[in-house]
Amino acid sequence: MNEKEKTKRPRQTSAKGNVPQKRHYKKRTPVQQEHSDTPAEIQHKPRPRQPKEVKRTAVRIIPLGGLNEIGKNMTVFECSNDMFILDCGLSFPDADMPGVDIVIPDFTYVERNKDRLRGIVITHGHEDHIGGLAYLLKKINVPVYATRLTIGLIEGKLKEQGLSGKVNLNVVEPRKTVKLGCMAVEFIKVNHSIPDSVGMAIHTPAGVIVHTGDFKVDYTPIDGKIIDLARFGELGSKGVLALMSESTNAERPGYTHSEKTVGESFDKLFQKGEGKRIIIATFSSNIHRVQQIINSAVKYGRKVAVFGRSMVNVINTAIELGYLNVPDGIIIDIEMMNRYESEKIVLITTGSQGEPMSALTRMAMNDHKKVNITPMDFIIISATPIPGNEKYVTRVVNELMKSGAEVVYEAMYEVHVSGHACQEELKLMISLTKPKFFIPIHGEYKHLKKHSDLAIQMGIPQENIFIAEIGNVIETDGVRMGVVSQVPAGRTLVDGLGVGDVGSIVLRDRKHLAQDGLIIIVIGIERSSNEIVAGPDIISRGFVYVRESEELIVNAKHVLVSTLNNCSNAELREWNTLKGKLRDALSDYIYQKTKRSPMILPIIMET
Amino acid sequence: MNEKEKTKRPRQTSAKGNVPQKRHYKKRTPVQQEHSDTPAEIQHKPRPRQPKEVKRTAVRIIPLGGLNEIGKNMTVFECSNDMFILDCGLSFPDADMPGVDIVIPDFTYVERNKDRLRGIVITHGHEDHIGGLAYLLKKINVPVYATRLTIGLIEGKLKEQGLSGKVNLNVVEPRKTVKLGCMAVEFIKVNHSIPDSVGMAIHTPAGVIVHTGDFKVDYTPIDGKIIDLARFGELGSKGVLALMSESTNAERPGYTHSEKTVGESFDKLFQKGEGKRIIIATFSSNIHRVQQIINSAVKYGRKVAVFGRSMVNVINTAIELGYLNVPDGIIIDIEMMNRYESEKIVLITTGSQGEPMSALTRMAMNDHKKVNITPMDFIIISATPIPGNEKYVTRVVNELMKSGAEVVYEAMYEVHVSGHACQEELKLMISLTKPKFFIPIHGEYKHLKKHSDLAIQMGIPQENIFIAEIGNVIETDGVRMGVVSQVPAGRTLVDGLGVGDVGSIVLRDRKHLAQDGLIIIVIGIERSSNEIVAGPDIISRGFVYVRESEELIVNAKHVLVSTLNNCSNAELREWNTLKGKLRDALSDYIYQKTKRSPMILPIIMET
Repeated sequence: MNEKEKTKRPRQTSAKGNVPQKRHYKKRTPVQQEHSDTPAEIQHKPRPRQPKEVKRTAVRIIPLGGLNEIGKNMTVFECSNDMFILDCGLSFPDADMPGVDIVIPDFTYVERNKDRLRGIVITHGHEDHIGGLAYLLKKINVPVYATRLTIGLIEGKLKEQGLSGKVNLNVVEPRKTVKLGCMAVEFIKVNHSIPDSVGMAIHTPAGVIVHTGDFKVDYTPIDGKIIDLARFGELGSKGVLALMSESTNAERPGYTHSEKTVGESFDKLFQKGEGKRIIIATFSSNIHRVQQIINSAVKYGRKVAVFGRSMVNVINTAIELGYLNVPDGIIIDIEMMNRYESEKIVLITTGSQGEPMSALTRMAMNDHKKVNITPMDFIIISATPIPGNEKYVTRVVNELMKSGAEVVYEAMYEVHVSGHACQEELKLMISLTKPKFFIPIHGEYKHLKKHSDLAIQMGIPQENIFIAEIGNVIETDGVRMGVVSQVPAGRTLVDGLGVGDVGSIVLRDRKHLAQDGLIIIVIGIERSSNEIVAGPDIISRGFVYVRESEELIVNAKHVLVSTLNNCSNAELREWNTLKGKLRDALSDYIYQKTKRSPMILPIIMET
Repeated sequence: MNEKEKTKRPRQTSAKGNVPQKRHYKKRTPVQQEHSDTPAEIQHKPRPRQPKEVKRTAVRIIPLGGLNEIGKNMTVFECSNDMFILDCGLSFPDADMPGVDIVIPDFTYVERNKDRLRGIVITHGHEDHIGGLAYLLKKINVPVYATRLTIGLIEGKLKEQGLSGKVNLNVVEPRKTVKLGCMAVEFIKVNHSIPDSVGMAIHTPAGVIVHTGDFKVDYTPIDGKIIDLARFGELGSKGVLALMSESTNAERPGYTHSEKTVGESFDKLFQKGEGKRIIIATFSSNIHRVQQIINSAVKYGRKVAVFGRSMVNVINTAIELGYLNVPDGIIIDIEMMNRYESEKIVLITTGSQGEPMSALTRMAMNDHKKVNITPMDFIIISATPIPGNEKYVTRVVNELMKSGAEVVYEAMYEVHVSGHACQEELKLMISLTKPKFFIPIHGEYKHLKKHSDLAIQMGIPQENIFIAEIGNVIETDGVRMGVVSQVPAGRTLVDGLGVGDVGSIVLRDRKHLAQDGLIIIVIGIERSSNEIVAGPDIISRGFVYVRESEELIVNAKHVLVSTLNNCSNAELREWNTLKGKLRDALSDYIYQKTKRSPMILPIIMET
């Protein structure tokens, strides 16, 4: 840390918690030398060869989410006594987390070092980038910086969590820079499936680190704002120390199509659906998609009605902030729908992932108050199922078709394009920024690996590429980079109002209960005499249909009675031992008879 | 029924259970007339116009599985006093059936009419066609007819279920016919992803019904035996009353590639994997795929080791019956692997669907005794994830890659082809058989719908197409066809040794327990005095981590105590009322504090 910085911020360097102190670079430490691919500023202004120990102030990159997983993206950047967070997202629970609503990153490290936290910057308004924010801000209230639409969407989230007006929210325009202690974060326009997305150039004492956020290259975006390739190039030309680039589509060759191709498909499908009511399901946050639906509606003389809470919220925010261009009178209230002929209406709805409570699913299941699906409906699902959602989407498609509606959902109609860069675009980003070090981010291991293969193909030395894990502390002094230590990282489960109170034991029990159900053994023992005064009784749930398995239950009771009869007086006094004996005896009997292992809970009541 | 048949089988016509008696055709009843598309035999031998009431003996088709679902294929055919079953498969449980091992059809209708059951014919040896057989044969022991390999695989299944040697199994060659009462079933060779697959021509008094089984058209199959298109054509030329054709790939345009293309890919990949150990995961039943792996192994001078119980079983059966051509010394014992250099070995393994207990998954998780994955492994997953398995497969791929292995799994390498006909092949089948009536089978509604759209495009009148549901009784007299009634049909869940003892209540409880866990309230009441002598105590599982939620549990007890204090003596005597009061009070409190709804079980013990 230099003197100037020290005087600027009187707060003392805190070394609480797990601040990484060690500086030994564990792996892949290339010998310090004047690489031909070191940043240009070093090349252009050759300095006398420095002794090995004189390095620039080190910067630490600590991913807390988004590596080896899809979702809950979050990265901490640290330098001297300053720290900021880039994105704070959520992910959705897997099948092995029953009952869990959402998953957020483990904030332990940030909480322990909150004195050093200068702010949070957000790349765009998707849940996997903003969904954890309210939970973090409840614990640590720091300023948030994002583009205008993103701030608008964050405001909505904070309102839901009772934080409205309590957080310092700052709108930042692309090409503008936010100073966060000894680091400065520059916002750079990118294309993605939500407007106002940015990547970041993080200017640090060690060099420039480029973080792409989620991006694609769209030369004909709906809002006309093409990704700022020039600025990425300019940074690359001056020298980028490290590139952190997203890997979602790293397995896919070629380019991602322009959002505009979907509009062209809509035009054709509006012709095909002539004479019918058109219903289009898409992601609520895909405002450009919604814009194109509105454009087609205007062109073909239809009114638009909006369904689904999140769709209504996002569209309202987008209209308010000027991100949707809606001619007067095009959007009609749901209640007014009956005033128009069906073939003059388009419904825009949530439910493109077959979510059980969504508007489209309720329509499909004949469970929607306002919309009844008939053969006069032409339905477009303008999305691709997120892995894990395939079965839900298929179920909705089946049910819609059973009502006689025509349903368009195949890829062949081009009713959806991805928001993420494919291989050629990823290569373009590497070419523009020419980074010394490369850290693929946002993806499972296979995505990160494919992305790193691309980087190797483009000449980045393997030892300069880091496939990291969450909690890794990646440190660089501008010359070398390495994983130097580890901080607490993982997942925090949110279930109802509980944040973090569902852990591995609770999940293990839930899964056990789901697999084979539960048997409760109840016994009353008179304490002084050790006499069994009640039971043994058996109560089961989720195990067998008891009325049809009476014999099994009766025999199970016999097993318990004979176990009790075989117990000595001393054993009857040792309740933990007794419980264990009963549990084992019943468990063996049940497994032998059914090949199932229900949870067995012996309850002994003292009277 | 004619006289000859009556004398042949002295057994009386039984009209037990749900034998459909009604003959009124509920829907789509075209007026009886000489259609231009009636079977050719009628056209060529014009008979005097019959009075409306004189019809040919009616035949009933009753699907008991495989419609509006993928799996558990089973169809009953009935005519006069005779009945036979075509296929008897299983399906795998959905996420909403926790703890369930497999799902089989509801056999109620067959059991009620077992006196009329003449036999079971099987199209091929896949689980979704034979997996329910042992469960049915335990209840009704009737002869089974299938091709040689299929019989071999069925024998294995019966052995597992303790039915070895107890069932009358009959090998039938393609082009041969089995007489089953007044119906005769002719086996017709088809191509599929397991050898010895057949379709069936069912010759009935009402006309010929063609059932394709699972099929594709492969002009270059590995065993050289091309689907018997000529026979399908001959039948069509003579007149087919109804075609029942599989719909799995009805959404896919074009043709399914030949199995041979996979062999060509293997050859290229064996070159790419030179110097490394090669591991290939595929479906154990895909014997032609295994044959091609062996062929490549021979060509590139490698030995083959086989992993996974089902893979070993199927390969042994296939070798025994002559369906695999394995040069001497190519297959080596797992124990002998160490005698060969890794780059001279190919492992064939199960686990292409990422099944948690499979050999490949255990290798990926570093949990396999014999195989340790390293960067010197070249792994090919020769399969496509079945919907619902995507996440499992991805997890395995990620873990294999983390060990440094190269993993080939993308569609772009053509390491897998489907075993099912695409649209052009489905059209070919319709063209060859020229059926009067069309019943798309094997698929969810969307598949059946797409398939029926194809049939309409090809000129089959919409009113002659039946998208049926399981349990529908489809009756035809050779002139008309209609759904005339309904028999019991559905799913029977198998969990451990229990067949059918897990029903909707047990599943509902399991899902409830999985979502939010369980709270047990225990109270001891002295009967005579109505005095509370023990408790209230609270025990929870799968709800919260109790040590970190002590306050919640303590307050919950207070809620129970005050509820009890507010109870009158009369209320304390009415235990069901008392339980309801305690449950409601605790449920309200817990929901208010946590927004969760655990299952609450009040247990009152009388002392």
